[in-house]
Amino acid sequence: MIIRDRPDTWQILTAVRGSVLPQVTPSILIFTLIACSVVALDRLTPLVPHLNSGAYTVFGIGLSLFLGFRNNAAYDRWWEARKNWGGLLADLRSFAREVEVFVDDEARRREMLSLSLDFLHAHRMALRRLPFPDTGYGAAFGSSAAPACAALNAVSDALGRARHEASVDGFGAMRLAERLASMNLHQANCERIANSPLPFVYSLLVYRTSWLYCLLLPLALVQDTGWLTPIFSAVVAYMFLGLAEVTEELSHPFGRSKNALPLDSICRAAEISLAPHMNIPAPEPLAPKGHYLS
Amino acid sequence: MIIRDRPDTWQILTAVRGSVLPQVTPSILIFTLIACSVVALDRLTPLVPHLNSGAYTVFGIGLSLFLGFRNNAAYDRWWEARKNWGGLLADLRSFAREVEVFVDDEARRREMLSLSLDFLHAHRMALRRLPFPDTGYGAAFGSSAAPACAALNAVSDALGRARHEASVDGFGAMRLAERLASMNLHQANCERIANSPLPFVYSLLVYRTSWLYCLLLPLALVQDTGWLTPIFSAVVAYMFLGLAEVTEELSHPFGRSKNALPLDSICRAAEISLAPHMNIPAPEPLAPKGHYLS
Amino acid sequence: MIIRDRPDTWQILTAVRGSVLPQVTPSILIFTLIACSVVALDRLTPLVPHLNSGAYTVFGIGLSLFLGFRNNAAYDRWWEARKNWGGLLADLRSFAREVEVFVDDEARRREMLSLSLDFLHAHRMALRRLPFPDTGYGAAFGSSAAPACAALNAVSDALGRARHEASVDGFGAMRLAERLASMNLHQANCERIANSPLPFVYSLLVYRTSWLYCLLLPLALVQDTGWLTPIFSAVVAYMFLGLAEVTEELSHPFGRSKNALPLDSICRAAEISLAPHMNIPAPEPLAPKGHYLS
Amino acid sequence: MIIRDRPDTWQILTAVRGSVLPQVTPSILIFTLIACSVVALDRLTPLVPHLNSGAYTVFGIGLSLFLGFRNNAAYDRWWEARKNWGGLLADLRSFAREVEVFVDDEARRREMLSLSLDFLHAHRMALRRLPFPDTGYGAAFGSSAAPACAALNAVSDALGRARHEASVDGFGAMRLAERLASMNLHQANCERIANSPLPFVYSLLVYRTSWLYCLLLPLALVQDTGWLTPIFSAVVAYMFLGLAEVTEELSHPFGRSKNALPLDSICRAAEISLAPHMNIPAPEPLAPKGHYLS
Amino acid sequence: MIIRDRPDTWQILTAVRGSVLPQVTPSILIFTLIACSVVALDRLTPLVPHLNSGAYTVFGIGLSLFLGFRNNAAYDRWWEARKNWGGLLADLRSFAREVEVFVDDEARRREMLSLSLDFLHAHRMALRRLPFPDTGYGAAFGSSAAPACAALNAVSDALGRARHEASVDGFGAMRLAERLASMNLHQANCERIANSPLPFVYSLLVYRTSWLYCLLLPLALVQDTGWLTPIFSAVVAYMFLGLAEVTEELSHPFGRSKNALPLDSICRAAEISLAPHMNIPAPEPLAPKGHYLS
Repeated sequence: MIIRDRPDTWQILTAVRGSVLPQVTPSILIFTLIACSVVALDRLTPLVPHLNSGAYTVFGIGLSLFLGFRNNAAYDRWWEARKNWGGLLADLRSFAREVEVFVDDEARRREMLSLSLDFLHAHRMALRRLPFPDTGYGAAFGSSAAPACAALNAVSDALGRARHEASVDGFGAMRLAERLASMNLHQANCERIANSPLPFVYSLLVYRTSWLYCLLLPLALVQDTGWLTPIFSAVVAYMFLGLAEVTEELSHPFGRSKNALPLDSICRAAEISLAPHMNIPAPEPLAPKGHYLS
Repeated sequence: MIIRDRPDTWQILTAVRGSVLPQVTPSILIFTLIACSVVALDRLTPLVPHLNSGAYTVFGIGLSLFLGFRNNAAYDRWWEARKNWGGLLADLRSFAREVEVFVDDEARRREMLSLSLDFLHAHRMALRRLPFPDTGYGAAFGSSAAPACAALNAVSDALGRARHEASVDGFGAMRLAERLASMNLHQANCERIANSPLPFVYSLLVYRTSWLYCLLLPLALVQDTGWLTPIFSAVVAYMFLGLAEVTEELSHPFGRSKNALPLDSICRAAEISLAPHMNIPAPEPLAPKGHYLS
Repeated sequence: MIIRDRPDTWQILTAVRGSVLPQVTPSILIFTLIACSVVALDRLTPLVPHLNSGAYTVFGIGLSLFLGFRNNAAYDRWWEARKNWGGLLADLRSFAREVEVFVDDEARRREMLSLSLDFLHAHRMALRRLPFPDTGYGAAFGSSAAPACAALNAVSDALGRARHEASVDGFGAMRLAERLASMNLHQANCERIANSPLPFVYSLLVYRTSWLYCLLLPLALVQDTGWLTPIFSAVVAYMFLGLAEVTEELSHPFGRSKNALPLDSICRAAEISLAPHMNIPAPEPLAPKGHYLS
Repeated sequence: MIIRDRPDTWQILTAVRGSVLPQVTPSILIFTLIACSVVALDRLTPLVPHLNSGAYTVFGIGLSLFLGFRNNAAYDRWWEARKNWGGLLADLRSFAREVEVFVDDEARRREMLSLSLDFLHAHRMALRRLPFPDTGYGAAFGSSAAPACAALNAVSDALGRARHEASVDGFGAMRLAERLASMNLHQANCERIANSPLPFVYSLLVYRTSWLYCLLLPLALVQDTGWLTPIFSAVVAYMFLGLAEVTEELSHPFGRSKNALPLDSICRAAEISLAPHMNIPAPEPLAPKGHYLS
Repeated sequence: MIIRDRPDTWQILTAVRGSVLPQVTPSILIFTLIACSVVALDRLTPLVPHLNSGAYTVFGIGLSLFLGFRNNAAYDRWWEARKNWGGLLADLRSFAREVEVFVDDEARRREMLSLSLDFLHAHRMALRRLPFPDTGYGAAFGSSAAPACAALNAVSDALGRARHEASVDGFGAMRLAERLASMNLHQANCERIANSPLPFVYSLLVYRTSWLYCLLLPLALVQDTGWLTPIFSAVVAYMFLGLAEVTEELSHPFGRSKNALPLDSICRAAEISLAPHMNIPAPEPLAPKGHYLS
């Protein structure tokens, strides 16, 4: 995620980091060249058809329907994903407090908290399709087919053992089982978002309509706007292809693009929160590097 | 569901799989032919009335209202259906952990987990109106009038027996009964979506307005656009009829269209998740065939 | 509710059942006649003022704001009502399972289930302002001022008696009381929707703007469109008055219009679901009559 | 709240009660006069600038953004407020049933129910900033700084005493404490809506843009529309100023405007629902006076 | 937060306090000057290109997509933040009542309530990045790396001690642990909003498009509107830059801008609510200063 303050005037003109400019520059150049050719052709030959604004508005309706819908849907996915990770962080903190209230055996408590951090890291690595490291949180479950589920099973097993050892009573077992179910639900929600992309057909419709819109723009402008047409085309291509690109990134919130969620940073925040409950020193929070928080 | 990566330039131009092109090609051809006839007639006779853009915009307002609303409503149905199946998967995983924490008798535990998989498959087959197989999960309940309800009744009966045998205490009975109620709610939500289609009158309004819009387009364009009119008509028909088609598919998320939900794959994921709790080997996850996940 | 498959080409042209055509035909005819008069007057006299499209667009903005908002709000009411009835069905199924797990006395169980069906039918009849029958579910509570509340009170009384007889323990009493509270909440939600219509002022604004829009249309079209104007007026009146009519019906989801919810059918589904728990034969599900499900 | 059936043709033309016409008539008259002056000036002098529709559309975009947003936000506040009062009604009904199931002492039960009605009335009067009466529900708490909180504290105290007297066990105490927390949450939600108005800056933007739009309309119309301009201006001012007025009323759902919520009627409904549990005769429901329900 | 009544006619014309005018005045002046130069240049030379409205509408589509989306997203953040603080206030009130019902030891009760106020203030100061004071609520936790978490840990520790001293039973421990988890969730939600700004790329797109729109406006207007062009440009710049500014402020609801949430006032409301439970006199509620509530 890009962490920057609100842009000042100079940044509005020049900011590239955090912008989608790099990704869409090739397309913008192509559409600018096409616009130049159209203007040149129009000046030299009578072959270029002119679109009136009524005909062109037809595409505007389609484009705003598709882009508007896709932008909302993609942002909702991104924000729902963020909510679920925020929910996981809240669950881990509550879990740490609740084991202290309900579980009498301290070794059992530390085991459960450590396993819950294993779960969080395994969940993060599975979502991002990262290779599992050999050491550190989550490493013990890297060989499992479903590492996050396996880690949560281990927490649940520890709870089951605590119950049979009577170091937790019925009230505590119920409360902690509900807490694990809440983590499990957040995990399943994240997997749902990761495994159910926006229907592919919308991507096709959005990209096809955006391209068509940019392609036809010179025909609609050339008569009145003349040699300003290529500049216009570049700006419009930046706007619409840029938005299409942003929505593509936001709709995959667990990827590693600039707009993906800062899962590393959230995992670190969970470690910091659980440290006092485990009697270990808290690590430092992650800081953004070049405005980017991983 | 179609599983494809984001389209590159070549796919934007050519992708058919995952597109709605096949379904709407006949209509597009008809509208193109009509546009050709209108242009020809306009060149040869003075009979063709010309629509000014103001008159035509009137339909644009109606069309964007109807298509925009229906698209949002259809996508919400699809996504709500997906959420409920994601919730069912989460419930089954939590159920498996909670029976381990709260139920002492292992045979009873395996019976309950196996019955819950019966429930999931029966629910899937009932939603898709599939014939029940003779063996496999869900088969035992195929003869019931309401197979999914019958299977969930069986899980609940097993819980009741466990309670009378005292292999589960009051806390466990309460926690597990709440878990079953959650599954039951997700099931009822899916049935609601399946049994309450979008009001039929919207389908009529959307299709009638889209058709009218495409039908009148040549009259609005012919004067200025000439022989480009049929190409325009084809592109516009693709955009709007395509969107109407997509929303039709998405609004029936449990069907077997290309955009329907991958229920087989989710059921398999549940089997994989429950396998370690039942001490049986986990099956392989389902893989998409030709980008299609059933 | 109208239950029809997706319309094919022929139905798009001709479907009347499930359409709003019958309700809006008189208004359409009036606007067509007005349009004819305007064209005739315009041909014979120079008295008819011509509206340019800029002036006319002003009404388009208002109309799309009002219709778009009202359509969303009405559909949300309809869908929220449907969700609450789906929730009631789920609650009754869970209630039936939970009394089996937690209540030992079978006579008490059957009494509670039978009373819960009384509640559902009383709630349905109260929402639809139907007279109560002399026999059948709900009949016993027809003389009460608030039949649905009285029936739910009776279920709660049965639970209280079961608790004092010790045929249900504390866990069961808590679980079942929560279930009754959930039914009670769904009931209150339905009453809220029934008793709080959309603010009347929106109806006025929508109908007044739609009428004005259709009334002024001939003045905007007559100059360019000539004798096609009445046809246009008819189509546009169908679109906008039709949508206004649909939103009126959907915003009263418990009425008896074609787009109202199929409460009879949902009550029957509840009877079918509870039959095995009451050891009585299940009735047949309701089937749509002429595409209409009551 | 205005309770009227759907408007028929005659009412569409004439309804004033439930309309916003009275509030906006002065502004409409002003804009009509301005439009008359502009037309007269345009006929007599060449001084009046003419706006082309492109320039005017710029304001249309702004206006539809501001009005559309504010309308949705205001309606959401109104509907959320209604949901919370519906939730309070449901909570009081469930509370009455649950005290019967869980509290053994009848005097204690009646005390708790009576105090809960005190709470509801105190909450209503605090929200509407009404003076507290000397007798009747809520009167005992009128001298408190936060009457609704004080009344709910009293219910909670009664529960605490019941617990120490052992007339309610742990299960009952937990269930009833959750019920009180639910009432408390609905109360806090209503206070949030009452104390956090829509950001003032939106009111400024909406009113300023609406005024500007109506003010400039004659300049955009005068050239083509001539003496119809004042009529147009009046109709457009009615549409947009009327909507701005409606959203102002809806965004203050606890006020005493025509579109405010019928809190008196809901409090009365709660009294009716609790009467059988308190063994007192139920009062009559409130009826609308002149279509207005207070 | 600005607390003002609805603006009357005079305020609509003149209100500055609560308006965004001060922030956007420099930009408005720049665009007005540019517009003056364009008109002058157009009168003196033939060099100024004229944009037709079709070309200009292209930017209108982009602008309304970006501004509309960002406005909704920013308001949703603001309102969600407000809901969470409303939820915290409700939680503290319920917490105070529940400790009275479930905790027998009065000293323990007062300790828990006092610590919960520490938590609320620490949470407020952490969100606003304020320095911690030396005395008063929250001061004791100022040296912690995560003060709000530390304070909530302290409440939880007190609950744990009460449980080991048997001054709270299993039911009470469960109920109070759930209450603390609810506070913890609201805290995590606020931190999520504070730490996950709207994607930076939207800010760039909105500001760049708004600037471009205002910059090109004179070219679209100059031909028809002449010397009214600078006035138009100023008004349009006020509308769109003002909205961009408002959404920037609303999207940071915990800042100290005029539209930020009144956290001081909510904390004070919590102190007032808890005072009777702690047997201390209640402080005065905060009053707005110059329409501003901190």
